[in-house]
Amino acid sequence: MSKAEIKVYQNILSASEEWADKTRRLLAEHNIVMLNLIGSPGAGKTTLLEKLCVLLTGKIKFAVLEGDIETSRDADRLHALNIPVSQLISKGACHLGAQMIHKAVSDLDLADIDIIIVENVGNLVCPAEFDIGENAKIAVLSVTEGEDKPIKYPLLFREAAAVILTKTDLLPYLKFDIDLCEQFVKQVNSEIPIFRISSDDTNAFDILQEWVLNRK
Amino acid sequence: MSKAEIKVYQNILSASEEWADKTRRLLAEHNIVMLNLIGSPGAGKTTLLEKLCVLLTGKIKFAVLEGDIETSRDADRLHALNIPVSQLISKGACHLGAQMIHKAVSDLDLADIDIIIVENVGNLVCPAEFDIGENAKIAVLSVTEGEDKPIKYPLLFREAAAVILTKTDLLPYLKFDIDLCEQFVKQVNSEIPIFRISSDDTNAFDILQEWVLNRK
Repeated sequence: MSKAEIKVYQNILSASEEWADKTRRLLAEHNIVMLNLIGSPGAGKTTLLEKLCVLLTGKIKFAVLEGDIETSRDADRLHALNIPVSQLISKGACHLGAQMIHKAVSDLDLADIDIIIVENVGNLVCPAEFDIGENAKIAVLSVTEGEDKPIKYPLLFREAAAVILTKTDLLPYLKFDIDLCEQFVKQVNSEIPIFRISSDDTNAFDILQEWVLNRK
Repeated sequence: MSKAEIKVYQNILSASEEWADKTRRLLAEHNIVMLNLIGSPGAGKTTLLEKLCVLLTGKIKFAVLEGDIETSRDADRLHALNIPVSQLISKGACHLGAQMIHKAVSDLDLADIDIIIVENVGNLVCPAEFDIGENAKIAVLSVTEGEDKPIKYPLLFREAAAVILTKTDLLPYLKFDIDLCEQFVKQVNSEIPIFRISSDDTNAFDILQEWVLNRK
């Protein structure tokens, strides 16, 4: 060798990031938007999806990827409403992995879908750390969980494109200051839209539906 | 070498397990019992501790290790009630690590303590996977989270020595079948004691207190 060889190092994506990247490219090719719903167990994610998907039916073509550690109870609930759903079982893992998401997305009829909604494993912490190739994360927080969760678990609220505060019909029975909760959200993410909903509030769901349709 | 050497392999503990083991030995030396409270964000762990510790005061010598991802809000709440508390900040991690627990336990005046109660990071999934040297894990589930959580997130309920169902005062306003929830708990852990409590139910707290005092 007459000249010194120059070694070039590049940032290597982890296997998980590579799968997320592949999924992102696949979705872009088909002009599909993927939303990643994240919140604690019992935050009301499945009930939210039940209502939202019924509203979206006929307006836009969508599919749901339903993540759970065990059981297919949530997918069964959506399937009962004729919502197109695949069940992803994480088998003990605290979040959905990018590779499993890629497999599930690839198995869909992508030519016939506008939006994919992923319900992640119930966990306010870990799913926020893992890119699955989504276009936007959405934080779901129930008003039964206490106002201070956005500052105690800030990563999700910092990363999210929207926050949905659920179960607002319980507010009369709780010591929960919803304005203070929104202040805490704004403290970690000042521009984020916040939706207040309860499963029987049609008006709130119309507004949320509008926001989802505008993601396309 | 005249004889063939026999290589002996032992199960090597991970660094985390080693720290948990050290803590367990340290606690045993001082005849201290350590309980590890685990539940989702907003399950009511801190409120439970506020009430329980006030009841325990004068009856037994105890300390609280308060785990959070960020902020010292929960420790501040307990400190305001003169409850001896240390704040452990996990800095983004989804569970309390065994090494940090060991440091915090070592810093206590162990000669003057009977029970240590750890409030883990709010997460129904990951803290159940990590041994911190505790004598017992306690699962905390709020009745606002849905009946099916014990079978959807079975590890914690399988590992726990007791389940505390919190916020039962909200039952009249919820579609939550508490008997069905208990059946689901028994499905993964048939012998486990289950306590139903709400923060204003003195009787329920007396029963829970009795159980905690009997851990010694």
